[in-house]
Amino acid sequence: MKFQAPKGTRDYYPPEMAWRRYLEAAWRRVSIRNGFEEVEGPIFEDIELYKVKSGDEIVSQVFHVSRQEGESVFGLRPEFTPTLARMVAAKANALPKPIKWFCMPNLCRGERPQRGRLREFLQWNIDLLGLDTPLADAETIFTLVDLMRELGLTPQHVKIKISHRETVRTILTMLGVPEDRIIDAFNLLDRRDKMETNQYNAKWLELGLDEHKIERFDQMCRRTYPVGDVAHLERSIGGESIADLEALDRELTRFGIADWCEYDLGIVRGLAYYTGTVYEAHEISGAERAIAGGGRYDKLIELMGGPAMPAVGFGMGDVVLSLVLADKGLLPDNVSPPVDAFVFPADDDARDNVCRIVTDLRTAGLHTRMTYKTTTNVGKLLKEAAQHAARYAVIVETPTTSAGNIAVKNLTNGNQSEIPLAELVDHLRH
Amino acid sequence: MKFQAPKGTRDYYPPEMAWRRYLEAAWRRVSIRNGFEEVEGPIFEDIELYKVKSGDEIVSQVFHVSRQEGESVFGLRPEFTPTLARMVAAKANALPKPIKWFCMPNLCRGERPQRGRLREFLQWNIDLLGLDTPLADAETIFTLVDLMRELGLTPQHVKIKISHRETVRTILTMLGVPEDRIIDAFNLLDRRDKMETNQYNAKWLELGLDEHKIERFDQMCRRTYPVGDVAHLERSIGGESIADLEALDRELTRFGIADWCEYDLGIVRGLAYYTGTVYEAHEISGAERAIAGGGRYDKLIELMGGPAMPAVGFGMGDVVLSLVLADKGLLPDNVSPPVDAFVFPADDDARDNVCRIVTDLRTAGLHTRMTYKTTTNVGKLLKEAAQHAARYAVIVETPTTSAGNIAVKNLTNGNQSEIPLAELVDHLRH
Repeated sequence: MKFQAPKGTRDYYPPEMAWRRYLEAAWRRVSIRNGFEEVEGPIFEDIELYKVKSGDEIVSQVFHVSRQEGESVFGLRPEFTPTLARMVAAKANALPKPIKWFCMPNLCRGERPQRGRLREFLQWNIDLLGLDTPLADAETIFTLVDLMRELGLTPQHVKIKISHRETVRTILTMLGVPEDRIIDAFNLLDRRDKMETNQYNAKWLELGLDEHKIERFDQMCRRTYPVGDVAHLERSIGGESIADLEALDRELTRFGIADWCEYDLGIVRGLAYYTGTVYEAHEISGAERAIAGGGRYDKLIELMGGPAMPAVGFGMGDVVLSLVLADKGLLPDNVSPPVDAFVFPADDDARDNVCRIVTDLRTAGLHTRMTYKTTTNVGKLLKEAAQHAARYAVIVETPTTSAGNIAVKNLTNGNQSEIPLAELVDHLRH
Repeated sequence: MKFQAPKGTRDYYPPEMAWRRYLEAAWRRVSIRNGFEEVEGPIFEDIELYKVKSGDEIVSQVFHVSRQEGESVFGLRPEFTPTLARMVAAKANALPKPIKWFCMPNLCRGERPQRGRLREFLQWNIDLLGLDTPLADAETIFTLVDLMRELGLTPQHVKIKISHRETVRTILTMLGVPEDRIIDAFNLLDRRDKMETNQYNAKWLELGLDEHKIERFDQMCRRTYPVGDVAHLERSIGGESIADLEALDRELTRFGIADWCEYDLGIVRGLAYYTGTVYEAHEISGAERAIAGGGRYDKLIELMGGPAMPAVGFGMGDVVLSLVLADKGLLPDNVSPPVDAFVFPADDDARDNVCRIVTDLRTAGLHTRMTYKTTTNVGKLLKEAAQHAARYAVIVETPTTSAGNIAVKNLTNGNQSEIPLAELVDHLRH
């Protein structure tokens, strides 16, 4: 009988787990220093929660969870935002504003496993609620940049592509799309890369754009514009004033991250949540899917039964990020917890003392391993200590007493010395 | 529309999450210093995996996971051991021995939520595989004790109750239970507290014990015996030699944890896994369910398609542990990440500099918050800094430049000073 991990899920043996913890520690460190507080929620939710405002694609991918016939059906969480919105709505009045939360949930989606996509993955979430100014948008983008820098990435590796629903609306209106067709136009832009060009252009004709305007809009959306010089974008789209991006542009400049960002009007994100700024982080060659994506979702908390509450945030999965870091050679070689000491007996009578020393070192907080072999051959046991990548080998001989000395070998420089047993903990700490 | 967390699951707002992270950090610190390496697995598994060797009660509580009609059905993990066994079986020959693994999965069981039991909970798992000596059993018990000590518990709060399948077998044989009824006798002992006394005693009569022997066995099982003096237990059960507990007794003494432990022949654990030593950690008054439970499971890896591989380990849930710590007053007051600095402007023109200083401090790794208020009233903003429990307030005035000075107030002792902006990071680090 041989079982395997379900398709699209991962087994984390110690090396993979150490790498996962390295990534999670970076997410956590960056979140905390940017003033976000950690939250978590249930692994499954009332399945109706995911139908309120998730994208259709996500709803179709939800794993159903149930205990037995006739009991309620839950959904295994495919994203964290509905849980966050539920939690905020439940305590909206009691929570100090702005609310700045992060979390690092595992999420499950029943999609076909492929490069950059798994059925269970981790997602770092950053959310800032209760502030409707572009300062909030910019602070979430700064936090995203701070994480990229923390992992060794640069603007030569990654760009944050930014758009704004209201800017695109201004352009569409200028081009002649009637007010009541704007949402259809957003939906069409969102499906751009999933449609054939002829079909796509035909839909724009229906929305009131002639061929010349379709080409003009396409040119606007298929290039990028520098952040920190929003006038450049304004000139390119015909001199229209785009107040929302102007305000965001000032904030991104104040946060000192203009070089990490660019405007890209082709960025739409799923329409379900987003109401203002939208953005995605992409590897610069475009070789992978988005590393992160987010934006403003000012209506969601109210939809979940809470008060009106502006909100902005993003999610970053672990899968694409790991592919990009591996591709750039930015995966550190050794992220396992360092081993402080490896303890072994030099003769059979020393085994009781090995046990006592090991437990003393562990109780003092030192990462201490010992041999489980029956040999007392010091050469072989020093080799074992090296296999464990221990900083020190502690060699225990029979006459060791609490008043006596003990042999300690520094495995980094090869120096061996005898030190009083009472000083062992201090010696190994340095 | 108001949604709630599913029954028996938890929402972790920042204070609850900080406590969860405090507990997980202790689990992790103790695991690593005792030489265990972290692993993880999928949140769901092929549901058949849980039917191989889990207890009947657990199998009946598994949440089913499925995407749509006709697709495979998975089980939301109710325990980690089957995943661990699958992972070990898959790479048994490649993994260095002994295998020492820990993990801290969330688990789901569809039981009725009650004190000490939830439908989603965390469980710390410690497993040591590939060693069949009682040294391994004792090392897992030491690790359990090390965690208790780390959280401030003492032998006056908690006891590890230890039994051994072979010792109980020796006693049952001595009392006259025939070889082919020993398993029935184990099962009966396991159900002791779920049956009425008359019914329980009648079953023992069927297994060949007369009333005198039933009473004698009951007396043996309803008291405890000291660890570190196994002869005491041997005398009490009639002078039979119990080699397995003798060997374990020596190891527990060598590990220096005899005072934390006691023998209790009434501890059986579910029969599904366990083959030798079994143990449970209990709050000393017996007021709560077991804090942790484990033992030897020498057959499981082979059952999962791996080689014969001895194994011992335990699981500790977060729910009962938290109840015990709260009851003993051992929940620390403040486990949230400390805030290094709270930055605010003393006049409106200083806002750009606030942003620059905040981003510089964060990039330097300092936990930095800022005001989002429009006021520049220093008194009010110092109050806000105190609400965030910041160590320092950084007060930004317009003339601040990279060459100039900046006002810093130590909120612990109230001292305010002007320091060169270039020294700000170093100043706040101390």
